[in-house]
Amino acid sequence: MKLISQPKKTEWEALCKRPALQQEDLTKKVRQILDRVKELGDQALYEYSSLFDNAELTKLKVTKKEIAEAEQKLSEELKRAIQVAKTNIETFHKAQLMKEPAIETIKGVLCWRRSVPIEKVGLYIPGGSAPLFSTVLMLGIPAGIAGCKERILCTPCDKNSKVHPAILYAAQITGITSIYKIGGAQAIAAMAYGTATVPKVNKIFGPGNQYVTKAKELVQLDGLAIDMPAGPSEVLVIADPSGNPEFIAADLLAQAEHSADSQVVLLSDSVTMIEAVNAEIQTQLAALPRKQIAQKALENSFAVVFKNMDSCMKFSNYYAPEHLILAVKNAKQYAKQVTSAGSVFVGNYSCESAGDYASGTNHTLPTNGFAKSFSGVSTESFIKKITFQEITKKGIKDLGPDIELLAEAEQLFAHKNAVTVRLKSLKK
Amino acid sequence: MKLISQPKKTEWEALCKRPALQQEDLTKKVRQILDRVKELGDQALYEYSSLFDNAELTKLKVTKKEIAEAEQKLSEELKRAIQVAKTNIETFHKAQLMKEPAIETIKGVLCWRRSVPIEKVGLYIPGGSAPLFSTVLMLGIPAGIAGCKERILCTPCDKNSKVHPAILYAAQITGITSIYKIGGAQAIAAMAYGTATVPKVNKIFGPGNQYVTKAKELVQLDGLAIDMPAGPSEVLVIADPSGNPEFIAADLLAQAEHSADSQVVLLSDSVTMIEAVNAEIQTQLAALPRKQIAQKALENSFAVVFKNMDSCMKFSNYYAPEHLILAVKNAKQYAKQVTSAGSVFVGNYSCESAGDYASGTNHTLPTNGFAKSFSGVSTESFIKKITFQEITKKGIKDLGPDIELLAEAEQLFAHKNAVTVRLKSLKK
Repeated sequence: MKLISQPKKTEWEALCKRPALQQEDLTKKVRQILDRVKELGDQALYEYSSLFDNAELTKLKVTKKEIAEAEQKLSEELKRAIQVAKTNIETFHKAQLMKEPAIETIKGVLCWRRSVPIEKVGLYIPGGSAPLFSTVLMLGIPAGIAGCKERILCTPCDKNSKVHPAILYAAQITGITSIYKIGGAQAIAAMAYGTATVPKVNKIFGPGNQYVTKAKELVQLDGLAIDMPAGPSEVLVIADPSGNPEFIAADLLAQAEHSADSQVVLLSDSVTMIEAVNAEIQTQLAALPRKQIAQKALENSFAVVFKNMDSCMKFSNYYAPEHLILAVKNAKQYAKQVTSAGSVFVGNYSCESAGDYASGTNHTLPTNGFAKSFSGVSTESFIKKITFQEITKKGIKDLGPDIELLAEAEQLFAHKNAVTVRLKSLKK
Repeated sequence: MKLISQPKKTEWEALCKRPALQQEDLTKKVRQILDRVKELGDQALYEYSSLFDNAELTKLKVTKKEIAEAEQKLSEELKRAIQVAKTNIETFHKAQLMKEPAIETIKGVLCWRRSVPIEKVGLYIPGGSAPLFSTVLMLGIPAGIAGCKERILCTPCDKNSKVHPAILYAAQITGITSIYKIGGAQAIAAMAYGTATVPKVNKIFGPGNQYVTKAKELVQLDGLAIDMPAGPSEVLVIADPSGNPEFIAADLLAQAEHSADSQVVLLSDSVTMIEAVNAEIQTQLAALPRKQIAQKALENSFAVVFKNMDSCMKFSNYYAPEHLILAVKNAKQYAKQVTSAGSVFVGNYSCESAGDYASGTNHTLPTNGFAKSFSGVSTESFIKKITFQEITKKGIKDLGPDIELLAEAEQLFAHKNAVTVRLKSLKK
């Protein structure tokens, strides 16, 4: 990783800019796919499976038999590990369901909110080089806790029309209601607009390549809700001399192996530490099956040496990383200074892999600086909150005259009249 | 309002479709405005003020002197009414700030979330026919409670370069940090991209005409967060024979006076009730200053008679209204059946005007059926939640082997290695 030394504040913006993607052409291609699915429905989905996944499907929906077979194919120890992860994720996400009190703002005016599950949600799980069954857990579990009635999942199949058994197993144990062998932008289109086979949903979740991401962006313009905008995965590590270069190198590489356009950043108050981490990266890289991907990602990446921890924290908040690892003394104190990040890993033994899989936190997080305004996926992402109010005769008698004044000042006389007719009836 | 009698379920979708807007041309026009502000900054803003607001501005930012003068211009009783509304809105929105407990998912694995204010937010307040100072309260108050550091406001001025004093007063008492005399799509562009005068924000809130709405939609594609997609305002009233036709007519008209493209819907199990409301509408309409607007809106509107309350509730959830008024016996029981609505008004004395101004609930709500997947604005809209985890040596010892298994099953060996190096170090 290239080393940048004490950049001035004016240089931060350029440093924090993530590598930009080609957009024009992509939008056009994805728009075509969306329109075709909208127009032809299932027929388009079969065509795209043949074209993009080399799969000649006879059925889009995964059968009960296929799900049962999947369970047989997995080792008992993997199933047990999946269950451990599931339990921890459930524990953390159940705690997010909090009941708000009803509030009597003044006597006779009772206001409250009620959490209601979004009825139909669609989860997208990428196929490709790694079968991301962990993402099935991260989306399926909070959807279940929230109580979403219809929870469908789309994922591409391989050329033999098979979906990876771990994905099917994870979908089954999290109560996904139906699974479809559809990948890419066409899967997003199917869930956004509905086809004869795939139900139209209210909100779409899940990661994907640039086609999927663009498709999610575009269906938003048709009023579909999505979890969050997305970009390549990223980690930022802040290390002082108390950090362990071996651990830090491993954490940076774990991020770098995701994809060639991932970005990893190391901040430190010590050049010696950065050099030690760089050396460790070279050692560990050699042993990795995905070393070519990781190497490409490292080319987009950088390390920065600052005068002190305070500057490291400030730069990190400015960068707003998806994952932030605090490999520093008094990490918990520094954690309090974090104002922009998706998920934070506090101290030397809190590795990102733990949160990626099994500690309980969600791994669907804002990338690309979106942590400045977005939260990661949580149980709340599957819920909407409806406000209610119940006003008694006394309540409207007391508050009514003020409402009349306010409505009149906004020149909305019908708004005023809705109060006036009630006040008059009470005088009778 | 036209009367529809017991429509079949298959007809519901067509009935619930909101009047569609022309889009193609609008996108092009708004895109041009956004691009011009991005390129020319303040200069474009001055040009558009001249072009669209007929205002020859010499300064975009409202001065302290202008704010002080505004306060002088308002009557004491209006200021007092604004303070009453402010207090109620504060009371309800403060209760939304709930502290979540930290959760030890297993021994040695501590996970928690922390709410952090979004640093910079931009509020848009439309000008036009009514000075919507109430919206300043609805957005400014939760932004302040959340603790957003920079809270800016854009609103168009009149041809004398003046902003309505009630808007300035409401902005001042809610702690808006700066106010700019900018309207329309150009205001959204200024807040999204920043200019020499206007700071770039992280999230944009507020209602507006179709140009504003489209601009918010388009800046989303550049990664800006927005409060929610928007459409014309709407109300749905469910009335049984216990409802009061005079009240209901007033509530429907209060919605109808907003704009010609507003929609109002009345559901009942009684044709007599619908006829009585229609008669009342004619009587009340004659006295309204904005009767032409309301009349146009009524042309887009309809009443439906169903066999029973159960069907009314089902249709309402299908329609997902922005505002829902339950003018029925046992209204609180029926409130429990609501699964899609922005804000619900329970019983005969809970008029929508109360929630629009002063009861405490927010009036920035999902329209156009978006209540199926979106919540209205709340304190949470100005906050992001960051997850944290702290894992001890014991924690990683116990959980680590499962993470290794899971990472290996996803073929992500660098993820596995981040655990392995830690487990090895603990064996030493």
